[in-house]
Parts: sequence; structure tokens; C-alpha cells
Amino acid sequence: MGYRDGVKTQLSDVMEHLTPYTPGEQPKDGAKVVKLNTNENPYPPSPRVLEAIKAAANASLRLYPHPDAGPLRAAAAQHFGVTEEQVFWGNGSDEVLAFAFLALFQKSQPLLFPDITYSFYPVYAKLFGIPVQQVPLAADFSIDLSQYAQDAGGVVFANPNAPTSLSAPAEAIEAFASQRPATPVVVDEAYMGFGAASALPLVEKYPNVLVVRTLSKSHSLAGLRVGMALGHPRLIDALQRVKHSFNSYAVDRLAIAGAMAALADSEYYDHISQQIVATRDKTTQALRALGFIVLDSSANFVFAKPAGISAKELFEALRARGILVRYFDKPRIDEYLRITMGTAEEMQGFVDAVGAIVSSGG
Amino acid sequence: MGYRDGVKTQLSDVMEHLTPYTPGEQPKDGAKVVKLNTNENPYPPSPRVLEAIKAAANASLRLYPHPDAGPLRAAAAQHFGVTEEQVFWGNGSDEVLAFAFLALFQKSQPLLFPDITYSFYPVYAKLFGIPVQQVPLAADFSIDLSQYAQDAGGVVFANPNAPTSLSAPAEAIEAFASQRPATPVVVDEAYMGFGAASALPLVEKYPNVLVVRTLSKSHSLAGLRVGMALGHPRLIDALQRVKHSFNSYAVDRLAIAGAMAALADSEYYDHISQQIVATRDKTTQALRALGFIVLDSSANFVFAKPAGISAKELFEALRARGILVRYFDKPRIDEYLRITMGTAEEMQGFVDAVGAIVSSGG
Repeated sequence: MGYRDGVKTQLSDVMEHLTPYTPGEQPKDGAKVVKLNTNENPYPPSPRVLEAIKAAANASLRLYPHPDAGPLRAAAAQHFGVTEEQVFWGNGSDEVLAFAFLALFQKSQPLLFPDITYSFYPVYAKLFGIPVQQVPLAADFSIDLSQYAQDAGGVVFANPNAPTSLSAPAEAIEAFASQRPATPVVVDEAYMGFGAASALPLVEKYPNVLVVRTLSKSHSLAGLRVGMALGHPRLIDALQRVKHSFNSYAVDRLAIAGAMAALADSEYYDHISQQIVATRDKTTQALRALGFIVLDSSANFVFAKPAGISAKELFEALRARGILVRYFDKPRIDEYLRITMGTAEEMQGFVDAVGAIVSSGG
Repeated sequence: MGYRDGVKTQLSDVMEHLTPYTPGEQPKDGAKVVKLNTNENPYPPSPRVLEAIKAAANASLRLYPHPDAGPLRAAAAQHFGVTEEQVFWGNGSDEVLAFAFLALFQKSQPLLFPDITYSFYPVYAKLFGIPVQQVPLAADFSIDLSQYAQDAGGVVFANPNAPTSLSAPAEAIEAFASQRPATPVVVDEAYMGFGAASALPLVEKYPNVLVVRTLSKSHSLAGLRVGMALGHPRLIDALQRVKHSFNSYAVDRLAIAGAMAALADSEYYDHISQQIVATRDKTTQALRALGFIVLDSSANFVFAKPAGISAKELFEALRARGILVRYFDKPRIDEYLRITMGTAEEMQGFVDAVGAIVSSGG
């Protein structure tokens, strides 16, 4: 580079107050690790999804995709039993959440979310200048919505929550949403599909509820980038307007084709979800047998406090054996590990490794 | 929908001052129209791109993509002769531009751009609350950078410009960038590859120049959503930090695979670009022979003022014959049509249709 020294180019004032998100570690493709650190699905996407993508890899890629994901929007409406005007698609649920933050949450009142939850929420808030008030989880790590009674520009939480894996009862969410109709309530269901009750039925009754979903986890498509929101047409219209002020063609033609095939193959996805739930329950029992505290997971991961070894030590000992899990060096949760469910075989290997590490004293 | 009447859910204050972008009309796939309205490439992507995508449609889609597009970033650095730290990839150049607006342009000083240019610039500015000052094009529709001397938080223009098709000389851009090193200068090269001189050599010398590119037009991949920025590592780092505050995994695995194959097949793309340039020059001559004013295009479209019929009437008469072009109902350009270059055959059909319409008096 041949730059000369000189005047520094000015950047936006926005740059002064960013704290970017830190994605989980991504080893190179083909690296020999057991990857239990970013909550991906251990099973491949449906073969029909791969076929649909291959069929869509044709000359039509020269053309823009439908700006509102066209046929995928219609397919989702049918799949979820709503109208197209209640459906929004984006480039992964991270983008959908970003649009929701921009479109729904005010700058004049604080946004409420749990102190322990998806760590992207405070990042969006900083980017967009939205004031936040974090509400502590209860001592058992559950979300107690009675603690969200103050004036607010909006509420967002993950259900099931991450990294705790716990889900909130649908009745509690409904009671909360019905009590404050003026406040947008965003329920981030990234980890839906593994046993938790969805807030989806609420979007038909409460015009303030927005449910955000992704195909990354339940549909094994983290690499394709497709996420969605379901809600009242007025909320969806707000998302659409923000999207058309940012990036009109967010969902590409291959993602549209793949996502449509994914929604259509419930049989395959129900099957792999059941496998993951079975593996989760078996892993939970095995860790509890080692004396670990393991929360009751409704997600495709477990949140566990080791016994006889610190979380950080276990994290590092597993890493040395080529097993990646997630450790958060944060108050309240730094004694826990978040462990993504791999295949039954991978989790047997994980449990064996944990047993060996613990019995050798680290 | 079973919504009861009641309190309206509050939306963000951002919603009050949006004017979303209006994408060009997208007929349904398979509709029998000649589509010369959204500046897509008439030729399919390279067969190697389609093969690379099919090969990437595999089990690894269950995994997140590399958050910074990994191997694609390295491939672009090699292709353009820069370092990886000078390369940023996003979900189409629209997203790259959105990140650039957020990361580079201040709210305390106006952003300067031409009064006639890509209509997404004022849309981003409204979304992010960036004040703007539009600078009129010269009477011949060229960008006169001597008119951009005032204090500014940034400058953005398209080169070649749209919808005018005219390009600015590289020397003029260099002189301008060197005169105001503190000001970010974003050169949107969406239509590069059809004869204009790129500002790419400037990013090695001037730390305030950001060049934005897309594979949508020159590489026939509008349906895949891949765009990029090239610039000083400090500007690129700012884009990265904003991206990681918005959507970490913007470029999906199929897009990474397809874009890498596209960069590698210069032979194919040089060939189709030459065809488009030849068709453009022939179309220009034919329209001029009908008495039309046609600007000297450096892009994959022409900007033409009809003779013997108004632009709007010709637009509608073409539409009635199944030929879509773009008409802008805006001061200064409402006597012109923007016509995307189709294949040689399509443009012969277009010229014939125009001739028939004009000779029949509309």
C-alpha cells in the first residue's frame, strides 16, 4: 500500500459508540473439530432443499430476486396460516432483528430486554442510538415478565432464551402483550422447534407482537441466511419500509428456492428435531449424573454448570481435545458452558471427554 | 385475522421520515416481456459460477458462513491486487452502500451528491438522519466536481452515473479526492466493466476514497446479492464494525462460492461485456438515426431523449408491446428513457419497435 501520511479521513459519529457483536469461533471448513459452539444443527439440510438450490442455480440468477421474496412470502403465509401481509423475510434473523430495532423501537424511551440474552440486542441498540434498560433474569435464570412493567419503547427477548435454553410459558407472554398494547413486543424465536411453545398464535390477536424466526437452526440452513418475522400487517409494513430504505433485495434467489423447499419438507425436519431433542435429553442426564447443574432446555443446546472443575477450565480442556463449546466471561454466567447439541455420536464423545477430564481433575 | 380494535402500537420515530426506494418493476419469472428496465445483464452467469454454486449446495449449509466472507475476501484481494484489509463484502452493493453511509457520513455536515443519480442515496440519508445537499449536474448531464467545493461530511456519486450513463474522468476524481483528504469520497461503480475508467487505482493512494462494486451487472449475478467495497484499511474496518453491529453473516455460503467462481472467470465476463458494449454502440447509432438524443454511455444502458414522441408516450407504447424500459417522472430527466442493453436480438427488436411506434405517430 502506498498511502502517504496526512490528514485522517473523518468517519461517522456513529463509529464512536459501537461495540460490535463477536460471532462464535468459526474453524476453517474441513478442520477436525467437533463444533458445539454456535448452535448450528448437526444434521444436513433436507435433500430436497439441496435439490431446489441446484435447480435454481440457472440463468435466472442474472435477474434481481423478488424484492419481498415473492413466492417464499406466499409459501410462509400458507405454512403458518397467516396472510402474506403478516410475513417479512430477511437475510437471516439477525437482519430481521436489525430492521425491527430500527422500525419499532423508539429513542425517547428505553428498550427492555433481559440482562442475560442474545448479545446482539445491546449491539443493535448502540448502533441505532436506542436507550436500553436490562432487566435481570430471575435467580433460576427464567424471564419474569412481571419485572417489565415500566414505561418502555419496546421489549425484546429470546424464547427459548440464549444462552440459558429456558423457555417462557406462552400464557405469560400473552398476558404481558395484552397488558401493554402500545408497546412493540419482539419475541425472538431463533431456537423454536425443539419443544418450546411458540408465540405465533399471539400475532393473530395482538397487533403489538412480532415473532422472529430463522431457518438457521431448526432447518439446518445457517449457511443460507434466511430469517423471517410474523406479525400484524402494520408492523410488517414498517419492516418493509425500513428494508426498502436499506437493501431492497435482501433475500437472494437461491435462498428463496432453498427456504421454500425447507418449509415444504416438515417430515424431514420434524425427524431431525426429534433426534436433537432425544440427544439433548440424554446429554442432560449424562451431565447431571456427573454432578453438573443443567437447566431444562427447550432449545438445541444446553446450559450447564460443571462440577469438580470450573467452566473455563473445562472449556479449555475440551478445546485441547478438539471440542468447541461456548464460554461467556460475563457476570452470573461465567460458571456455565453453552453446549450445542451435535449428533448422538458426537455427544457421546463429548460426554466421554467430559467424564475423562473431570475424573483426571482437569 | 382476528385483531380487535384498540390502542395503536407505537413505532420508531425513524418511521416518520422515511421515503423508501422504489425498485424497478419485476415481472413474474417466465412472463413474456423484454426486460430492459432494471439494468440486469442479458447473458447468463458463467457456467463455472453455476457449477460452483451446485457444488456448494451440500451439507455444509448447516454451518454459518465465514463472517467476513473468508476465502472470497482473499480471492478479491488477489484479483484486484490489494490486501484483504482493503476488501469488504456485503449482501449486494446496496447493503455495502448502506453500511458506508452509516460508517462514513457525518450528521453534522451535509452529504453531497448529484441531483440526478442513483435514487437510493437520498433514501439512505433519510433513514440515517444524514443531511444532504444535492449538487446539480452540468447542463450536459456530466458531474462537475468543481461544484463540490463546500464543507461536507462526505461525497457519493455513481460512476458511470445512473440514469445518465456518463462517466467522469479518473483524473478529475483523483484531483478532487486529493484536494479534500478529510472527506470520505464514495465512488459507486455499480456500472463499471463497460468501458469507464475505474477509481480503483486511487484507493492505493488516497485513504479517503472508497470504491463500491457489485457483481449484479457486470457478472450477471443480480439474483445472488454480492457487492463489495475497496478502500483504505481504516475505511474498511469502519464498514466491518458497522456490519458486525447489524448482521455479521451477510454473505451466504452459496454467494461466496458463486462470487469466487465469477472473479476467476475473467475470460467469460470480458467476452459478454464486449458483446454488451457492441450492442450498446449499435443501439445508440440506430436511435440517433431516428433523431433521438442519446448520451455517450459507459454503462450497460443508454439514456435517450426520443424524437417525434414524448418519453412517457414511448415508454407506454413499448410497454404495450411487452418491452419494459425505465421512465423517471422527475424534473430535468422526464424527457428521457433509460434503456438497459439486452441481447443483440432483443435490441434489434427494441429498435424495430421504436421505429414502428415513432413512424405510426405513437
